[in-house]
Amino acid sequence: MSSSTTSQQERYTLHYWPQIPGRGEFVRLCFELTKHQYIDSTDIPRFQALLLSSVPASGQPTHFAPPILEVASSESKEPFYISQTPAILNFLAPRLGLLGDAHALSGLDREVAQSQILQLCLVALDLNNEVHDTHHPIAVAKYYEEQKDEALKKAQDVRDSRIPKFFKFFQLNLMAQSAGSGGRLYGSKTTVADLVVFQVVDGLKFAFPTYMKGLEASSKFDAVFQLHADISKELSDYLGSSRRRPYSDGVFRYYPELDGPAPKNLA
Amino acid sequence: MSSSTTSQQERYTLHYWPQIPGRGEFVRLCFELTKHQYIDSTDIPRFQALLLSSVPASGQPTHFAPPILEVASSESKEPFYISQTPAILNFLAPRLGLLGDAHALSGLDREVAQSQILQLCLVALDLNNEVHDTHHPIAVAKYYEEQKDEALKKAQDVRDSRIPKFFKFFQLNLMAQSAGSGGRLYGSKTTVADLVVFQVVDGLKFAFPTYMKGLEASSKFDAVFQLHADISKELSDYLGSSRRRPYSDGVFRYYPELDGPAPKNLA
Repeated sequence: MSSSTTSQQERYTLHYWPQIPGRGEFVRLCFELTKHQYIDSTDIPRFQALLLSSVPASGQPTHFAPPILEVASSESKEPFYISQTPAILNFLAPRLGLLGDAHALSGLDREVAQSQILQLCLVALDLNNEVHDTHHPIAVAKYYEEQKDEALKKAQDVRDSRIPKFFKFFQLNLMAQSAGSGGRLYGSKTTVADLVVFQVVDGLKFAFPTYMKGLEASSKFDAVFQLHADISKELSDYLGSSRRRPYSDGVFRYYPELDGPAPKNLA
Repeated sequence: MSSSTTSQQERYTLHYWPQIPGRGEFVRLCFELTKHQYIDSTDIPRFQALLLSSVPASGQPTHFAPPILEVASSESKEPFYISQTPAILNFLAPRLGLLGDAHALSGLDREVAQSQILQLCLVALDLNNEVHDTHHPIAVAKYYEEQKDEALKKAQDVRDSRIPKFFKFFQLNLMAQSAGSGGRLYGSKTTVADLVVFQVVDGLKFAFPTYMKGLEASSKFDAVFQLHADISKELSDYLGSSRRRPYSDGVFRYYPELDGPAPKNLA
């Protein structure tokens, strides 16, 4: 599904760590949901060259971290490279038909709608970052075992305060858009923001199974769990394929000691 | 300075905490550098209503955190609201002439350029977030004093590993664009990415004065410090005005115990 003619002439390659879903998964889901062709590169030397090289072709910016999206086009001799997950999602969403009802808008209305969909993505990606920090609260380059005491404290705060705050935000927006049934975060159709929230909820179920069961049983966030179920269905072909990487030691990790019961007094 | 005709009809209001520069400052700098009119709202009840209200007018998304940009236009009856700093910057940059050389581009070239400028903003905003976590590594809602032991560890890692890694990235991009003199992060003109890096470097000078003096003395990041000096000049009217809020207890805080010498072996 393509919403603009230019995207027909563009070819996309995703460069990311090969073994984990990680932040690459947010980009992958855009292609998989829309069944848009893409290359999921497994060329590690090329990936490392992109990540470490001083400057890619044509004076383009270097990359601080993956995922990196490569865009080849018949319009230009050399490919373009974009990194930073929110920038990639914001670039791809209009091309892949992932702006939902906003595709029908134009002018300022459309620009605001795309900005607000990016806003929703950014909130969910902030939660993704906070979940990462539950196992790496002190130093990203050190082992979990070296910061386990701090991780226990951080994970408790994220479980007790942060995840409920984010889920309340998602629930509120889903209920407002749709009166709570079959709803999406922005309007009535699936947008890139729904994909990001799906992936974060999905990863949380892996990382904090006991906690998430408690959260679901509370019935406070039914629309969020319903969204996860709805998007799972939309993605069922992909999720059942070998292209979906298992969670392991990426952003979402299962350490039983970081899991725990859901708080009793959910706002 | 306005790059599109629509922006002439748009009126912008920034809603943010009144006492600190914080993340609102990134938005404020866009208006101040381009001398574009805006309202820097000090209407706290209205701010709180926006932040806490279930849903603003017309089914727009709610706001997880400020800054919030209000956009009023003669085209639409009700104002629009956009939050999340990167979404706001990406919305404003083309309107305020803050895409530098990319304003001369069109089609895919322009869209990629804008995405890459957003990419550079996001890297700098990631550093901003990591600096915030030096004084709040465990729980954002608790006092610094309750997480001081962890803050000491986190700050050491950010000083020894993270800031040098980010500065190396900025230095590399500045050198590549401009052979190191009077350069900007994207092309030869000031973009929103330069403003974000300026503000983060400026805040770091306040939060870690000893460390930053050491970093500057190392001469490893001359282009980054030159960029800070250049943008300071461009912003001199504003920086000398009472509109520039002093740093206090926002993202950038001065706790002498979190400051320290720059590492001796900078890559």
